[in-house]
Amino acid sequence: MKIEAIKTIVTSPGQNFVTVRIVTECGLSGVGDGTLNGRELAVASYLDDHVIPCLLGRDPRRIEEIWQYLYRGAYWRRGPVTMAAIAAIDMALWDIKAKAAGMPLYQLLGGASRRHLMTYTHASGATIEDTVAAVSAKVSAGYPAVRAQCGIPGLGAMYGVHPLHSGDADAPKLPEEQVWSTSRYLQHVPQLFEALRAAVGWDVHLLHDVHHRLTPIEAARLGKDLEPYRLFWMEDAVPAEAQDSFRLIRQHTTTPLAVGEVFNAIWDARELISNQLIDYIRATSTHAGGVTGLRRIFEFAALHHVRTGCHGPVDISPISAGVNAHLGLWAPNAAIQEFADYSPEMHAMFPHAWTHHQGYIHPGDAPGHGVDFDETLAGEHPYEPAYLPVCRLEDGTLWNW
Amino acid sequence: MKIEAIKTIVTSPGQNFVTVRIVTECGLSGVGDGTLNGRELAVASYLDDHVIPCLLGRDPRRIEEIWQYLYRGAYWRRGPVTMAAIAAIDMALWDIKAKAAGMPLYQLLGGASRRHLMTYTHASGATIEDTVAAVSAKVSAGYPAVRAQCGIPGLGAMYGVHPLHSGDADAPKLPEEQVWSTSRYLQHVPQLFEALRAAVGWDVHLLHDVHHRLTPIEAARLGKDLEPYRLFWMEDAVPAEAQDSFRLIRQHTTTPLAVGEVFNAIWDARELISNQLIDYIRATSTHAGGVTGLRRIFEFAALHHVRTGCHGPVDISPISAGVNAHLGLWAPNAAIQEFADYSPEMHAMFPHAWTHHQGYIHPGDAPGHGVDFDETLAGEHPYEPAYLPVCRLEDGTLWNW
Amino acid sequence: MKIEAIKTIVTSPGQNFVTVRIVTECGLSGVGDGTLNGRELAVASYLDDHVIPCLLGRDPRRIEEIWQYLYRGAYWRRGPVTMAAIAAIDMALWDIKAKAAGMPLYQLLGGASRRHLMTYTHASGATIEDTVAAVSAKVSAGYPAVRAQCGIPGLGAMYGVHPLHSGDADAPKLPEEQVWSTSRYLQHVPQLFEALRAAVGWDVHLLHDVHHRLTPIEAARLGKDLEPYRLFWMEDAVPAEAQDSFRLIRQHTTTPLAVGEVFNAIWDARELISNQLIDYIRATSTHAGGVTGLRRIFEFAALHHVRTGCHGPVDISPISAGVNAHLGLWAPNAAIQEFADYSPEMHAMFPHAWTHHQGYIHPGDAPGHGVDFDETLAGEHPYEPAYLPVCRLEDGTLWNW
Amino acid sequence: MKIEAIKTIVTSPGQNFVTVRIVTECGLSGVGDGTLNGRELAVASYLDDHVIPCLLGRDPRRIEEIWQYLYRGAYWRRGPVTMAAIAAIDMALWDIKAKAAGMPLYQLLGGASRRHLMTYTHASGATIEDTVAAVSAKVSAGYPAVRAQCGIPGLGAMYGVHPLHSGDADAPKLPEEQVWSTSRYLQHVPQLFEALRAAVGWDVHLLHDVHHRLTPIEAARLGKDLEPYRLFWMEDAVPAEAQDSFRLIRQHTTTPLAVGEVFNAIWDARELISNQLIDYIRATSTHAGGVTGLRRIFEFAALHHVRTGCHGPVDISPISAGVNAHLGLWAPNAAIQEFADYSPEMHAMFPHAWTHHQGYIHPGDAPGHGVDFDETLAGEHPYEPAYLPVCRLEDGTLWNW
Repeated sequence: MKIEAIKTIVTSPGQNFVTVRIVTECGLSGVGDGTLNGRELAVASYLDDHVIPCLLGRDPRRIEEIWQYLYRGAYWRRGPVTMAAIAAIDMALWDIKAKAAGMPLYQLLGGASRRHLMTYTHASGATIEDTVAAVSAKVSAGYPAVRAQCGIPGLGAMYGVHPLHSGDADAPKLPEEQVWSTSRYLQHVPQLFEALRAAVGWDVHLLHDVHHRLTPIEAARLGKDLEPYRLFWMEDAVPAEAQDSFRLIRQHTTTPLAVGEVFNAIWDARELISNQLIDYIRATSTHAGGVTGLRRIFEFAALHHVRTGCHGPVDISPISAGVNAHLGLWAPNAAIQEFADYSPEMHAMFPHAWTHHQGYIHPGDAPGHGVDFDETLAGEHPYEPAYLPVCRLEDGTLWNW
Repeated sequence: MKIEAIKTIVTSPGQNFVTVRIVTECGLSGVGDGTLNGRELAVASYLDDHVIPCLLGRDPRRIEEIWQYLYRGAYWRRGPVTMAAIAAIDMALWDIKAKAAGMPLYQLLGGASRRHLMTYTHASGATIEDTVAAVSAKVSAGYPAVRAQCGIPGLGAMYGVHPLHSGDADAPKLPEEQVWSTSRYLQHVPQLFEALRAAVGWDVHLLHDVHHRLTPIEAARLGKDLEPYRLFWMEDAVPAEAQDSFRLIRQHTTTPLAVGEVFNAIWDARELISNQLIDYIRATSTHAGGVTGLRRIFEFAALHHVRTGCHGPVDISPISAGVNAHLGLWAPNAAIQEFADYSPEMHAMFPHAWTHHQGYIHPGDAPGHGVDFDETLAGEHPYEPAYLPVCRLEDGTLWNW
Repeated sequence: MKIEAIKTIVTSPGQNFVTVRIVTECGLSGVGDGTLNGRELAVASYLDDHVIPCLLGRDPRRIEEIWQYLYRGAYWRRGPVTMAAIAAIDMALWDIKAKAAGMPLYQLLGGASRRHLMTYTHASGATIEDTVAAVSAKVSAGYPAVRAQCGIPGLGAMYGVHPLHSGDADAPKLPEEQVWSTSRYLQHVPQLFEALRAAVGWDVHLLHDVHHRLTPIEAARLGKDLEPYRLFWMEDAVPAEAQDSFRLIRQHTTTPLAVGEVFNAIWDARELISNQLIDYIRATSTHAGGVTGLRRIFEFAALHHVRTGCHGPVDISPISAGVNAHLGLWAPNAAIQEFADYSPEMHAMFPHAWTHHQGYIHPGDAPGHGVDFDETLAGEHPYEPAYLPVCRLEDGTLWNW
Repeated sequence: MKIEAIKTIVTSPGQNFVTVRIVTECGLSGVGDGTLNGRELAVASYLDDHVIPCLLGRDPRRIEEIWQYLYRGAYWRRGPVTMAAIAAIDMALWDIKAKAAGMPLYQLLGGASRRHLMTYTHASGATIEDTVAAVSAKVSAGYPAVRAQCGIPGLGAMYGVHPLHSGDADAPKLPEEQVWSTSRYLQHVPQLFEALRAAVGWDVHLLHDVHHRLTPIEAARLGKDLEPYRLFWMEDAVPAEAQDSFRLIRQHTTTPLAVGEVFNAIWDARELISNQLIDYIRATSTHAGGVTGLRRIFEFAALHHVRTGCHGPVDISPISAGVNAHLGLWAPNAAIQEFADYSPEMHAMFPHAWTHHQGYIHPGDAPGHGVDFDETLAGEHPYEPAYLPVCRLEDGTLWNW
């Protein structure tokens, strides 16, 4: 079996996605997701200009060899662009492998460990009242787990509260600028969760995303303040380059900690996991080297009582949502998966075997990973330049978004 | 797909082997190795009396679920009997899975990372001269790596030097008793390797097995004394229950260290691997929980620059030899595999796709793991009680064999 | 003195027990317990097929030598089957030794350090009210220490709450499947202990068994939540393969921690004890290598301020209950012993010198360990296949029972 | 002052270089190097498609703000593509700043700490004799420090030994594949340095680059074996993702260790530096975030007795060579800089104020960093696809090049 052609397509059905299709001589093909929000074309160039020429004619069954060839062979390892490109190739190869086996991907990983995987949905509001209403609506609709984000008085848009991207001609072409005040935030969030527990009770999982904006001691304080409301997790409490900064948080609070959506390799989480400084690892297949990369992270996490909770808003394509679901159906330590539903255009462009019902996802039983890609539809939605927002303190200091 | 029947067969074509065959309703079947040298019937009972009744009617594709069911579900975890039983089931399930996929097992693991896997063979002698001759013969025959063991003056049989088991009626039915003297040994071994390097040069890998008989400081001394002869590894320098005993060896010598043939789970090696106290992990599929268990160990080892060198004398059956070769063809960090060839009777009883040529093994490309089991032949070679030897110091103290 | 015969008997007076009797040429005999719940016949095979043939004709007084012969001589060390078999032999040999001395076993260990040893009993209920009533009844009956387990709303049977095994023809022959929800549990348990303290006051020791079902951060939270109710201990908070997972629990709570009923050797607890991560070691004679194995664990624990609390429900026979009591009367650091009383059939089958009165056990002063075994009665209660339950999360994931 | 235009040019005067030019409204302009060997166009896309649109109209004097904007604002941080792009912008901004000040860049950093900075040059040969001759020629020419690489008998091309890239039409368009054998290498290298010291004496610094190809214990052995020859450093002994792997090397040898040419951020070296596991940090301005990024690394290294030795073969452009020289003239802990001279075409395309004389470099005193870029010449040398080689073990396993 040989790789005959590989194509990279960047398309924007409301959000830019980078998709790779690998076609083999024997007619089997597979697709993979290499989306890197706000840096999509760099991944496409990495693939088209540097990766794809090396892969034509190779045996697509040698997935590990190809992964290592791209990882070690680039000499300059790691990082978001590199690993998203490798992920796209790797997912497409596993898609082909599983199709050749006539099995859904999760069967190759070891088979299903559960009926389906719990997901969490998003609910946000400009005020506590709005947020309580939004969360309540999700709970009433039967969702088992909801991430709640709330506007902070005196600040403008906050992460998760306002739509960040649209197809509007008016949409900002440069990164939106948001304002941040840690002290306002730290006062407000415990009130939000007090109100939420009063409104929705204790039988739903509540999550919160701090989005890297605190220092360790501030995160420790927030974790302690939130203990009475029993969060499922507190996410991205601090930027994670300095992994041992989590020690400080950890020694002060039993609020479970999640981190890792920006991680690209197991090395980014090694210290955090092996020292059990976190409880959930949020690495996702697109950004962490595909099935091969993420399987390694899941396995390593399992040895240290760390469970999985893949990143999964619409900044990864339905391909990754499916791949994550396959990994999550198999992995003994899988716990939850982020799921912010896709638009009708996205569903149409990426026909998929996975199903999501009232907060649970199943990858489906189609051979391969079960997600396809409609290139004709893609042609109708060309790439539109877009950025993630940036965040500043009130005095203008560039902060962590 | 459902499991219709599982059978455990203990047979002795010169050596006792415990083999499991799983048959599915759809007609596919798979075999696995649960051999535990000297304790074979306890594994057979564990399987027949306790494991098999729980598995009939289950979906054989849910390998991870079954592995966890047997591991966690037993409540009493780990240990050689438990893990050999789990291994036998797990190998047979992966055999079925890969047959169902129409692929050799290594393809499901991620495909081949190399053309074939280097093995090492055994060469022993009662004296240094004999051992040099034995090693030289192997080198002349083209073997790339040879484990050299030598009789010690004043002691009788030593590990690896004399045949331990035969089908003879005269063979001891109780464990053979061997005598040990650390001081004699420590003086002798460096002379052996000095003679070997003089005789065979530097282009062959030489290995040595200490067989758990030293204390850490003695092992440190031996490691240092052997440095000029550049061993591929020094194996089982001390008993490994106290894992941090390797720290002492490690701080004194750069002779590479291998250990783990008695390990049954990743937990037995976690401290050794994560602290990089060893260089090669010798866990083998039969004793470490099958494909599922050993894959985890390999992956964990890779993160810590630890390479693999599966245990593989004739105390595991040709099934495990094949399964190890599949894992070894795939794993990026696979380095070598022990290979002490099987007798004609064993080859006949376990027809296999794997091939071994001049010190390199390849698992073959038959669907599944590629090793079958001839039950008719097995019926002609019933179980014969046999034990591994025990070892005593010269004053009679029970020591580590 | 020579060992003339050894016999293994598996019998089920309501629960399966594996019993070994060693008979010497001089007429003395001793009995030992090798029960491994749900895996009994594998232990019996290990003894009958592999261990017993090696021991006939040996000097039964050389207990240490025999222990090492079985432990080191098997080559494949540790694990539940191996160590239960060694334990059965070891207890029987100590029984003979003490009978030969004409002394109760505790005298050979060093004599009594206390009048008697405190035990704890079990009290469970489907609801908090039921559990409070059950505990109150035990307290009224004079028990000094009670382990309280309670059903969780929305879940079915929970560990310790419903009878798991019966002699009924209707009893499930396959492992019972139970359902688990950590979040429901974590909300419920503190309420149970609040109600208990309100009902029974502060003059009774309350214990709780988490049964390995939490992750470390969840256990840390529970430990903190339970602090106001001053538990005697919180048991088996997390699975203990990764011993350093206890560090996280430890840094968040002063609730005393107990663990170790699944441990088979001192190696399983070495890291936990030497780092003082636990307060009570629950290893028990049957599963941890008999008198010889458990004495070593007790001694090592004493060096680190860790006290003893032997596992002891009806899944070990009255022989082990007695052996544990001898060790507990002697050991300077003995604290408590689990005691869930035996049925009349069991008392009859195992006539014993030990007495249990209002929560305190004394091993008695009969020579030997003081427990005998009625083989005739045993013959009337043959082995009945039975399993421990397994536990699953609500989504079907196999969890820790 | 505002940024008016930014241009990215990829050109290949024998080697591909990525160059950025920033032009300000006031007429000042600066250039920066973003070369990432084998992945050049991905960096160009990262700049053109995602970075440059955000920077137009901004104040070029706010270098720190822009650095943070690109680093934090991308959300997906670190990695070679991202950091090379940031580096190119950052160097050009510092060039502008220093031109605006009318000063050479080193003056803005704090002024010169030394007369000039020592560099090391390369000398290689297919055999020991060739290599001795090549090194001797460099020594005779007055170079104070020489990196010696030598072909290994039985292997083909080795790192640094043969020209890897040429402008020939015959040059391989896909990555060249090289073969590696650790055991052959480990035997050979000490002989090389023994011969070198015999030939060139002890008054020249000898360096050696292992190029990530050893495991830690092998590197430890090599370090020990090389101690008699007193190397200036042993470089890139092992792949550095698992930073604590350097502990093992460190405990066995006093041969100084250098690493870091593949590092992109201070986070990649934090553990190595703060634990003093290395002696020289080889991070270079192009790959580690420009002047801003590298200055931080130098400062952090200084706190831990780690000195600098910037990577600098022809895979970074003369711009980076100059920027590194400015940092090296200033930094109190600067030690040495790699310098493999550029071709006449490269010198012509990048006119520069820096001078290199007999092994010492000085950045020159032109305002800015002193390196310009001739776009007309660049237009004559368009990008030519090229790759770094990959490396395989003799059995075909993909290894570290």
